[in-house]
Amino acid sequence: MIELPREARVVNLGLWVFADAVAAQGAAVVHVDARPPAHGDPVMVRALTDLYSAGLEAANAEVLRRLDREVSYVVDVSPAKEVIPGIGDRMILHPGPPIAWDEVCDPLRRSSRAAVVAEGWADDPAMAERLLASGGVTLSAANEHGTVVPMATALGPSMPVWVVDNPAGGTRAFAPLGQGSGDVAWLGRESAAAVERLVFLRAVAGPMLKRIVARMGPIDTFAIAAQGVQMGDDVHMRVQASTNLLLRSMLPAIAALGGDGEAVAFSEYLSANHLFFLTLAMASAKALTLSAERVPGSSIVTTMARNGTTYGVKLAGDDRWFVADSPPVEAALFYAGYGPRDAAPDIGDSAVLELVGLGGSATAGSPAVAAFLGGSMAEAARATGEMRRICGAESTRFKLPTMDFRGTPLGVDVRKVVETAITPRVNTGILHVSDGAGQVGAGVATAPLEAFRAALLALTEVR
Amino acid sequence: MIELPREARVVNLGLWVFADAVAAQGAAVVHVDARPPAHGDPVMVRALTDLYSAGLEAANAEVLRRLDREVSYVVDVSPAKEVIPGIGDRMILHPGPPIAWDEVCDPLRRSSRAAVVAEGWADDPAMAERLLASGGVTLSAANEHGTVVPMATALGPSMPVWVVDNPAGGTRAFAPLGQGSGDVAWLGRESAAAVERLVFLRAVAGPMLKRIVARMGPIDTFAIAAQGVQMGDDVHMRVQASTNLLLRSMLPAIAALGGDGEAVAFSEYLSANHLFFLTLAMASAKALTLSAERVPGSSIVTTMARNGTTYGVKLAGDDRWFVADSPPVEAALFYAGYGPRDAAPDIGDSAVLELVGLGGSATAGSPAVAAFLGGSMAEAARATGEMRRICGAESTRFKLPTMDFRGTPLGVDVRKVVETAITPRVNTGILHVSDGAGQVGAGVATAPLEAFRAALLALTEVR
Repeated sequence: MIELPREARVVNLGLWVFADAVAAQGAAVVHVDARPPAHGDPVMVRALTDLYSAGLEAANAEVLRRLDREVSYVVDVSPAKEVIPGIGDRMILHPGPPIAWDEVCDPLRRSSRAAVVAEGWADDPAMAERLLASGGVTLSAANEHGTVVPMATALGPSMPVWVVDNPAGGTRAFAPLGQGSGDVAWLGRESAAAVERLVFLRAVAGPMLKRIVARMGPIDTFAIAAQGVQMGDDVHMRVQASTNLLLRSMLPAIAALGGDGEAVAFSEYLSANHLFFLTLAMASAKALTLSAERVPGSSIVTTMARNGTTYGVKLAGDDRWFVADSPPVEAALFYAGYGPRDAAPDIGDSAVLELVGLGGSATAGSPAVAAFLGGSMAEAARATGEMRRICGAESTRFKLPTMDFRGTPLGVDVRKVVETAITPRVNTGILHVSDGAGQVGAGVATAPLEAFRAALLALTEVR
Repeated sequence: MIELPREARVVNLGLWVFADAVAAQGAAVVHVDARPPAHGDPVMVRALTDLYSAGLEAANAEVLRRLDREVSYVVDVSPAKEVIPGIGDRMILHPGPPIAWDEVCDPLRRSSRAAVVAEGWADDPAMAERLLASGGVTLSAANEHGTVVPMATALGPSMPVWVVDNPAGGTRAFAPLGQGSGDVAWLGRESAAAVERLVFLRAVAGPMLKRIVARMGPIDTFAIAAQGVQMGDDVHMRVQASTNLLLRSMLPAIAALGGDGEAVAFSEYLSANHLFFLTLAMASAKALTLSAERVPGSSIVTTMARNGTTYGVKLAGDDRWFVADSPPVEAALFYAGYGPRDAAPDIGDSAVLELVGLGGSATAGSPAVAAFLGGSMAEAARATGEMRRICGAESTRFKLPTMDFRGTPLGVDVRKVVETAITPRVNTGILHVSDGAGQVGAGVATAPLEAFRAALLALTEVR
């Protein structure tokens, strides 16, 4: 006869139901959350097995090094048509994967019409709609032009853009100037005021920022962002500290503009715009991913962008988009009077920040973003912890004080995404789905797993 | 015969040595750090016993309410002689308790001479020394004039000051403009450049800031500081976030100054001065303590200031200074080539910030200050924890993200200081003791217990 022990101590692997049953009998139980990789899908498990190789690890190491160590500098502000390669005369650049006009979501339609009016191609949104529908104005994905645009931005060729160089990588990226908050086109508005803001950026802010950058010389944006992370920025949803650091450094150049009415209007635009740094950070991240994506045979994600209809992912060394439906924004706080039914699907190229150790990766250090995740810093730490499970490295430039200065997770590895079924969490705003109200909230968008699974399978084929 | 238990579990109270002896024998021991109050001093224990009364609690509650809830606004920038009550024609205001010229420490001597030269009363520091030594220029404690000055600042009557009103308390306080970093008088320098900076503040920065404040209207400084605390400021040693928030809000008013050479020089001064907010915060704190100190019969400290020779404390409702020797600055990081022997004793009125929930009280949220306490955020949390043991309340406006948005400790209670023998920890800079090198480091100064013990005894006499 076997004598049973008087005290049972149980370690339970996998299914919670067994652990619960043991605990219900008053015994000690430790539960280990062990799940089969890729939900046990045999095709994915086979693909994952194929993809752990020395060659791929070497490619990944180089991709991660470029994302972490290369440095981006703002070197100029110029009209898009003068600097962005391949932008056509009557072309609008949009966020996310390529898309046809009849599939474009409501906020981006409105923003596109506002852009067409601001370009002077149409007198009003109705006329702009006809031009866009007829192909008289063409659409092109900004990412195909080394450009990233936030939220529902539609970028016309006359609009000023940040020009950002990554000298080590030999790459150049672009992003529009921030339009600010409120009644503005990038948030899905097509009002006269929204058009007026675009004209102001072209006529006033662009030329003035060009003079400011010329006076200051190259600006190392991620050196500023690294300080911003110490000051509670995730450098995506929250860029307040980085914006203010940049503006203080710009002060002498702003004063040198002269104190006329235009300079005051320009200063008012800066003063009211706590998101000003966002598009500089995006272009800086893009200048790094453009370099990283030249490395073939890697499993690190180098493009992640949404057009409000589809969500697209690209891997380093592979020019193809892997696309799924754009998801709703979750864990959301809505403005008073709005709720989930008012929310357009996730939109914008700003998710490029989550690829370089910012945004969702830096949430643990951001009290302001924590407010969108239930309010506690523990929730914020969990968000960064999830990103750590799917990233290939830790940033050596972005350090989290709340994690004793550990680097933010950096470089989303499609293998880890598929294996854990955890996709990147992107901190973002929410636009109204249909009525042109503009921004109605903010929250966290979880990228669709299907796009990553497709990318993983394609990677096994390439090899 | 008594049977001994086979397993001993020990709770040890008081002396560590017994706990150590138990632990050395391999037994479990919990040590409780129980010490007799006030080191068991019978006079102090008696005084403490006398001071727990309903009347005193009511007085304290009112003092704490004023420190926590009243609001300070910057309303003007004007020359000291036009606004500060009682400032004489040939008078220099200095930090800390009243002091005679022959007892003044080296950095404050140098700063005073620079101030005398900047006022135009002497051609050079040697002539200034003779004037000061002869009584041709008199010294007066800034705190006696509703004014607070940082580090070794010597404030002459022509210098511009922030004018800060606390409308609810009906009080008004003053502090000089920040001089910036480097070769500047407030850090104990008397060079031509240090004098030149004083002249610049009088001739350029003061008048321009006067125009800026007039254009902006009253500025709620602690609303800014509250955001700064969310962004890693302790709002004493570190005011970077608060400075930048303020400057962004000032941008349109700065642009409106006009873009001439003086405006550019002024913008360069602001752009280089990450400590700019410090003296606004100090004057704002002083406007609160001036209101709080009108409440009689309280055990809450309302003045805490050092002149580099002595360290003075005052209680609400009591006009007397309780003074001890100024201590060395501890837990210090020195600039390369400097060490403890180069350090002047603790100096400046900035400790007023530690009375309103800032500085040492807010250290837990400041990665930059943590760097001076061994580098970890846990050390920073301990610093705030010590302040919590000696404070009467928690701030409702300054919240620490790293402590799940708990308020900073506020209102130093002299009873708790004497009972625990824990004195306030003040985050501060370190000046060279003798050679005029200026700032040589930064660290934490622990206030001398004797001053608090004297204040406590006096409080029992008053009652």
